[in-house]
Amino acid sequence: MNVEVVAVGTELLLGQIVDTNSSWIGEQLALVGLDSFFQTKVGDNLDRLVDTLRRALDRSDAVIVCGGLGPTQDDLTREALGVLVEEPLDEDDTMVERIIEMFGSRGRRMPMNNLNQARKPASAEFIPVMPGTAPGLVLPTQHGVVYAVPGVPWEMKEMLTGFVLGDLSRRSGDPAAIASRTLRTWGESESGLSEMLAPRMAELDEVGNPTLAFLASGFEGLKVRITAKAADAAAATEIVDEEADHLRALLGPLVFGRDGDNMESAVLAALEARGHTLAVAESLTGGLLGSRLASVPGASAVFRGGVIAYHPEVKQQLLGVPDGPVVTEEAALAMARGARSSLGADVGLATTGVAGPEELEGQRAGTVCLAAVWPGGEASTTLGLPGGRQQIREFSCISVLDLLRRRMLVDDDAEA
Amino acid sequence: MNVEVVAVGTELLLGQIVDTNSSWIGEQLALVGLDSFFQTKVGDNLDRLVDTLRRALDRSDAVIVCGGLGPTQDDLTREALGVLVEEPLDEDDTMVERIIEMFGSRGRRMPMNNLNQARKPASAEFIPVMPGTAPGLVLPTQHGVVYAVPGVPWEMKEMLTGFVLGDLSRRSGDPAAIASRTLRTWGESESGLSEMLAPRMAELDEVGNPTLAFLASGFEGLKVRITAKAADAAAATEIVDEEADHLRALLGPLVFGRDGDNMESAVLAALEARGHTLAVAESLTGGLLGSRLASVPGASAVFRGGVIAYHPEVKQQLLGVPDGPVVTEEAALAMARGARSSLGADVGLATTGVAGPEELEGQRAGTVCLAAVWPGGEASTTLGLPGGRQQIREFSCISVLDLLRRRMLVDDDAEA
Repeated sequence: MNVEVVAVGTELLLGQIVDTNSSWIGEQLALVGLDSFFQTKVGDNLDRLVDTLRRALDRSDAVIVCGGLGPTQDDLTREALGVLVEEPLDEDDTMVERIIEMFGSRGRRMPMNNLNQARKPASAEFIPVMPGTAPGLVLPTQHGVVYAVPGVPWEMKEMLTGFVLGDLSRRSGDPAAIASRTLRTWGESESGLSEMLAPRMAELDEVGNPTLAFLASGFEGLKVRITAKAADAAAATEIVDEEADHLRALLGPLVFGRDGDNMESAVLAALEARGHTLAVAESLTGGLLGSRLASVPGASAVFRGGVIAYHPEVKQQLLGVPDGPVVTEEAALAMARGARSSLGADVGLATTGVAGPEELEGQRAGTVCLAAVWPGGEASTTLGLPGGRQQIREFSCISVLDLLRRRMLVDDDAEA
Repeated sequence: MNVEVVAVGTELLLGQIVDTNSSWIGEQLALVGLDSFFQTKVGDNLDRLVDTLRRALDRSDAVIVCGGLGPTQDDLTREALGVLVEEPLDEDDTMVERIIEMFGSRGRRMPMNNLNQARKPASAEFIPVMPGTAPGLVLPTQHGVVYAVPGVPWEMKEMLTGFVLGDLSRRSGDPAAIASRTLRTWGESESGLSEMLAPRMAELDEVGNPTLAFLASGFEGLKVRITAKAADAAAATEIVDEEADHLRALLGPLVFGRDGDNMESAVLAALEARGHTLAVAESLTGGLLGSRLASVPGASAVFRGGVIAYHPEVKQQLLGVPDGPVVTEEAALAMARGARSSLGADVGLATTGVAGPEELEGQRAGTVCLAAVWPGGEASTTLGLPGGRQQIREFSCISVLDLLRRRMLVDDDAEA
């Protein structure tokens, strides 16, 4: 079954907001074995929205429309569904009561235009899951089913997982199951990985199953995705698991994790297994490393916190870094040692360097010094990173974690 | 002129990477007065890519294809362009030399498959700007022009600003100019703002120019976008500027900035104007607040750094917070005072609370305590924030900055 995603909103086309919804929906569809071949963004314009829905129903079995269900005049998804099935919009009394009651129970004043959200074409049903004040709609048509869900991410996600995905699976009844695994790597380029795996890819090409794909994902590492199709989920999973083992052996320590792992979660898990705690000292990353670590569920078992030493004086006062240049490996090591001791952690990590665009201490943008200090060892490195300010920071975060992983954790494992 | 954006990559459909490129391109097109009515994501599949390009040329004047220009077998944009104009792909000798030379000058080993990138249909030209190792292409067809640019964001951006946007403007020759302004607000819901501005919107609806749109952007505030069309850029700008002044008067202190401002940049600018420095103490935000502040160009004039006090002991040891519960306004105030004194800053901000999903100290997820301390005053608040872990953190960041803005900065201005 092939499900198309349509994201509605002029603000999406104008780049005022990034459409993360259809990416998330695409991922959920893949996980339940449904294909998504096209995802389209269209503005708050009735004709173009209707046209987009018609084209989508033409080439796909089902459509998920995301956004345009709000209370204001530029929210046109309800109208578009009405045009699609040539039905007027009627206000649903039960929904009117529900919306009024919902605002009442939260003690919030209800703007009258919220009642627009109780309108729908007669052949549409409200989606039974309604986490916010915007009801979703499911509309069966001659050419396939359309689901309309809000653009607010958490409302959309609750409706998808609570209703839409299950409803789609029930309608699809496709016996073929898809499974996919992703290996996450750091340390080689996309074409470098591709060359390392070329013989294996040639073998797989002959059989056609599983397939491999590469994906450079910045911060998230360079991913190798394995996808297999089989008669049932267990068989598909067995194929991708076997292939994952095979590729892990070919790629060695380049692989830091799989599927939902990222470098932060991989390093935190390895430290937790050793009973170690972690502290950070951040200059050019300004808190980004800490924020990424704190995003990992359960981080508090390992991550104690850190010092954001944006101003050089803070490096000296809170971290005991000696006076002198701060874009050096010596300064990074002193910062990492300072974080470790002042936060009482077993392991310290530090980033310092030039995010740009201007030079600092005669060093060009992208020059970063990273350090890791752990019980019984320490390591530091200087990198010349490409890209703009944000990318330099992101690469600094993943690189300092990888420094610790390669030097402390992998070596530990090798000795074990 | 109407320019469609096509983003290529199965990883985009599978949600393994979020397509931020077409959002950015959409914004750049709007800035030079070009419309973008549709943006489509399509996978690494030749037939569907060709079909998407044909449909795009059918309804739009120009197409920008983003991605699929890499060296590996799943990079199909060059092939698709060949099919579109029914021409074979030939290897361009000059480009082959250039690619070899480029790898040589960077001291990097060149995987042989990189030479795939020198192939193109005869009627296509290479885009003269080539920041990375993937050349872009410009292909005039009977139905409009197609630009193919790499999916790597910084390479794409350099090609767009260095060549594509100028080339499009030259081809368009549309005398109508568009200008837009965005007011950024915090403190009212979308429908609340819509009701406050309803009379003004009714007036504008009659004239049809300028138009208003609302956009809830989480972290970035709730935006009110004003767009005007006029004979030239100066006239369009005058219209949106006048309307911006008018709306500012109606919305009062809800407005914290405009256009590219965000809450961080607005607060940093206001502090810089007062000669104040800033330090942060972060618990549930784990470094996110610092990282956002450090992302603002020129932040170092104001932002000294902070303490990530993820573990309660760190709050006590580095920030002097008394023993006891940490999800309280008292703890938040103690953290803000501690950040201010230990980092030697004029102003201190602090976040503590429950990111969830589990409760903490009997408080439910979303309960956050925020504090701001400045010369001559302090303020604190407790909020019950909706949404998941990430949203709770993001709203904590913008809310603590807004607390400072409203209580210290706006009051200052009122007294001045």
